Amino acid sequence: MTDWTKIPIKGILLDITGVLYESGGQAIDGSIDAVARLMKSKIPVRFCTNETSCTRKALVEKLHRFGFSMEEKDVFPPIPAMSSILKQRKLRPFTILKPEAMADMSEIDCSNPNCVVIGDATTEFSYETLNKAFQLLVSLDMPLLFSLGRGKYYNENGKLALDVGCYMKALEYACDIQAEIVGKPSRSFFNAALEDMSVSADQVVMIGDDVVNDVGGAQSCGMRGVLVRTGKYRFQDENHPEVKPDGIVDNLAQAVDMILKAL
Amino acid sequence: MTDWTKIPIKGILLDITGVLYESGGQAIDGSIDAVARLMKSKIPVRFCTNETSCTRKALVEKLHRFGFSMEEKDVFPPIPAMSSILKQRKLRPFTILKPEAMADMSEIDCSNPNCVVIGDATTEFSYETLNKAFQLLVSLDMPLLFSLGRGKYYNENGKLALDVGCYMKALEYACDIQAEIVGKPSRSFFNAALEDMSVSADQVVMIGDDVVNDVGGAQSCGMRGVLVRTGKYRFQDENHPEVKPDGIVDNLAQAVDMILKAL
Repeated sequence: MTDWTKIPIKGILLDITGVLYESGGQAIDGSIDAVARLMKSKIPVRFCTNETSCTRKALVEKLHRFGFSMEEKDVFPPIPAMSSILKQRKLRPFTILKPEAMADMSEIDCSNPNCVVIGDATTEFSYETLNKAFQLLVSLDMPLLFSLGRGKYYNENGKLALDVGCYMKALEYACDIQAEIVGKPSRSFFNAALEDMSVSADQVVMIGDDVVNDVGGAQSCGMRGVLVRTGKYRFQDENHPEVKPDGIVDNLAQAVDMILKAL
Repeated sequence: MTDWTKIPIKGILLDITGVLYESGGQAIDGSIDAVARLMKSKIPVRFCTNETSCTRKALVEKLHRFGFSMEEKDVFPPIPAMSSILKQRKLRPFTILKPEAMADMSEIDCSNPNCVVIGDATTEFSYETLNKAFQLLVSLDMPLLFSLGRGKYYNENGKLALDVGCYMKALEYACDIQAEIVGKPSRSFFNAALEDMSVSADQVVMIGDDVVNDVGGAQSCGMRGVLVRTGKYRFQDENHPEVKPDGIVDNLAQAVDMILKAL
């Protein structure tokens, strides 16, 4: 592994869940201070998350309660991006999402649906609801499935739990289609955060706990991808058959130490 | 399409659901008489089904109530085959199956599970249960998932409904594994029925409503595969990108007319 801090870093993208705090748990040791130090350094920082279990506002409020101090405008979750796409393309979704997240879809007409949107959900992924989504998709001339991320699992209170990507695969198989991803690792999703920082991909480091969607996704866009050993990280991620991280660190605090030292 | 009855037919495999009767509905027009005529012709007939929503005994009793007269020993569903495999390999499954089917697993030790078996189920495929299956699989050194068939959907009372294959795909993706299929289109599953008839594959015609698993599966084993326009059949199956049926018929009665005419 070469030194990933060698090329000057002009912007940083941070995953949230599993990097700043553990899902269902507390802030990760040193992460509150690490984010504060980054912000003080004047390197632009954006938060690039696939979190769709609540609204952006509620997510930022939770982070503030932990002690983080980012602004809502610097947080990029999938639902606002999805809402823009639905409006632009005049689509009316059947959604499988947690009720807590629906306020971020309040401007969207969900009557007489002509596409399906799935995101973070647990009991909402019942057989009955998934079957409704399937029946709608097969009834459409052009079945359109949007998946807010494509994660396999996340870490909830120390236990791995099925993520939206598994249900995406189920519907893709049932309908012989391929979902459009809104969220990481979609290039257009990363690009929105890059454009907001006015920096080019090769100057940016993405730090996340998902070796495929954070690290591999960022690398596919020309960024450096650094893996943390927190969140959903598993030992076997260090020898992933397809993704070789630019760096692997114990946690965000260690990554920030290295970044600031290289300034 | 060439004439699929030209090469002498020495054995017949029939799918059950969607060929003999409609799922949740009644016997398909002409199918009771067609099976009776086949049996009278002395061509050996076996029933090769992925039905796992009840026991073999209950399935045959239902068919008898419709007016069919096959014996239980001539019906090959996945659960008895699965039970043999579990016993041979000393495996203890965590199952996602309908309670009505569990009697066919009564000899199997399900304590302290070391593999997962999924089959026909509906509400049993809750997030909670699928997550339990996932957590078990990722805890195993050699995660072992058995899927009783790999169907995408079936036709229930005129509506398509998600089949076990979709949940198989979800777990395969979550765990980076490939399921072992017990049921069609598995070669060993077809072979058990062929061996019972003491005929070779090239002398046998399989008739089913699933273009991939019945027709394509039989063809992969060297049989002829004939598609019926009943059950889960959809118009686009006639131009399937991978499977070209040896014959396509309106229903079982028409297939049997052609078979008996060619004798």
